[in-house]
Amino acid sequence: MPAPTRANGSYCITYNELRKGQKNKTVGKYRSIITEKANQMAGEKEVKRDRLRMQISFILEIDGLKDVFRRTRLTNGSRRENDAEHSWHISLMALLLSEYADDEGVDIFRSVRMLLIHDIVEIDAGDTFAYDEEGYRDKSSREKEAAARIFALLPGDQAKELRGLWEEFEKRKTPDARFAAAMDVFQPVLLNYETQGVTWKSHGVSRSQVMKRIETIRDGSEALYRHAAALVDDAVRRGYLEG
Amino acid sequence: MPAPTRANGSYCITYNELRKGQKNKTVGKYRSIITEKANQMAGEKEVKRDRLRMQISFILEIDGLKDVFRRTRLTNGSRRENDAEHSWHISLMALLLSEYADDEGVDIFRSVRMLLIHDIVEIDAGDTFAYDEEGYRDKSSREKEAAARIFALLPGDQAKELRGLWEEFEKRKTPDARFAAAMDVFQPVLLNYETQGVTWKSHGVSRSQVMKRIETIRDGSEALYRHAAALVDDAVRRGYLEG
Repeated sequence: MPAPTRANGSYCITYNELRKGQKNKTVGKYRSIITEKANQMAGEKEVKRDRLRMQISFILEIDGLKDVFRRTRLTNGSRRENDAEHSWHISLMALLLSEYADDEGVDIFRSVRMLLIHDIVEIDAGDTFAYDEEGYRDKSSREKEAAARIFALLPGDQAKELRGLWEEFEKRKTPDARFAAAMDVFQPVLLNYETQGVTWKSHGVSRSQVMKRIETIRDGSEALYRHAAALVDDAVRRGYLEG
Repeated sequence: MPAPTRANGSYCITYNELRKGQKNKTVGKYRSIITEKANQMAGEKEVKRDRLRMQISFILEIDGLKDVFRRTRLTNGSRRENDAEHSWHISLMALLLSEYADDEGVDIFRSVRMLLIHDIVEIDAGDTFAYDEEGYRDKSSREKEAAARIFALLPGDQAKELRGLWEEFEKRKTPDARFAAAMDVFQPVLLNYETQGVTWKSHGVSRSQVMKRIETIRDGSEALYRHAAALVDDAVRRGYLEG
């Protein structure tokens, strides 16, 4: 590790360096360690700068979402999609398809905020395939532990806000969360249909499993559910999906 | 191509099939071709369904952004970042760093909308490296042509809205666009610093080039500019960047 240096009076350390120094610590203490270490190495209190530094630690940490791969493949079939690009895709879908939300007064910006962060816990917990019953058993506890570590990298107010949005998304009780969840389920149906059901086929997924899964779309949008159901029926007819 | 089929009274065709049938047509006519072809093959007017079908064509088309690779590498250095995951990352940055915007009353949701779509033209035009003077010469004309084709896949009102947001982002005159542009420039500085300047070094980028580039951050946020400038100075000191 290069010697700590100072630029324009601000202490500089790469996030990778910071992380390397913490390998053996427990994850729950991560946030306080970062703050302490930064303060200690800077040799003085830098309360205001700490806020930005924490935000940037989080921004660099979530870069890891680009390395969490889903089962779904890109429309050209070339490779599996990662969580970061999936999150981008469905956030944009929410903007474009808001007119199909069934609930009155869905706040699309809140739905988009949920979609931008909804998979962040998978940096630690990994992606759980929608049709993996085994994986779903401990999904919730794995993801809660991840949320405790990752959101806590942020300053307290933002940690609380993002964690709240994530929990709201997971519960799917509010109109904003229902519409967001509909996007999250609709998109892989589109990609699976486009790739001739390659993921469905390679994992032996059946029509009834997909029909159960897309009930989540129905909770947010009847029109989009009908479109998804038509694609599922056609996928069976074309042999993309077990009947 | 499988024979056209109908599911629940709705005509189903994959977007890949539609696209294959159009290979020799000029791109400018793409939108009307899609509509005509869909209507013709369905054998009836389906005006309402056409709207959703156009939206979904666009959603599938922009999947291509996941295959447009930037020069910047992920923080772990493993590979280059693609436009889709970059767009996700800076949209989330805009949410987290809005408190540093210098303009009064920045509408962060508009900034986020711009960031979600700002790179879509690169599906056709490709990514132009920030320090590629040659590439910048025809960047604007290439991107305008791309915008004409891609946004036109959407229904008219949405095509107009997204094209407007994209143009506003490109001009960087409004507070929302200035803050969005600051995110777009700040993020690769963070990633370059984290990866010990691998992209800067491999392209022979110098401090003065980066300092010129980050003026765009200053237009949106003095605080974030100062942070970026400190990283640049430190990068020179560490040998990540030519002095």
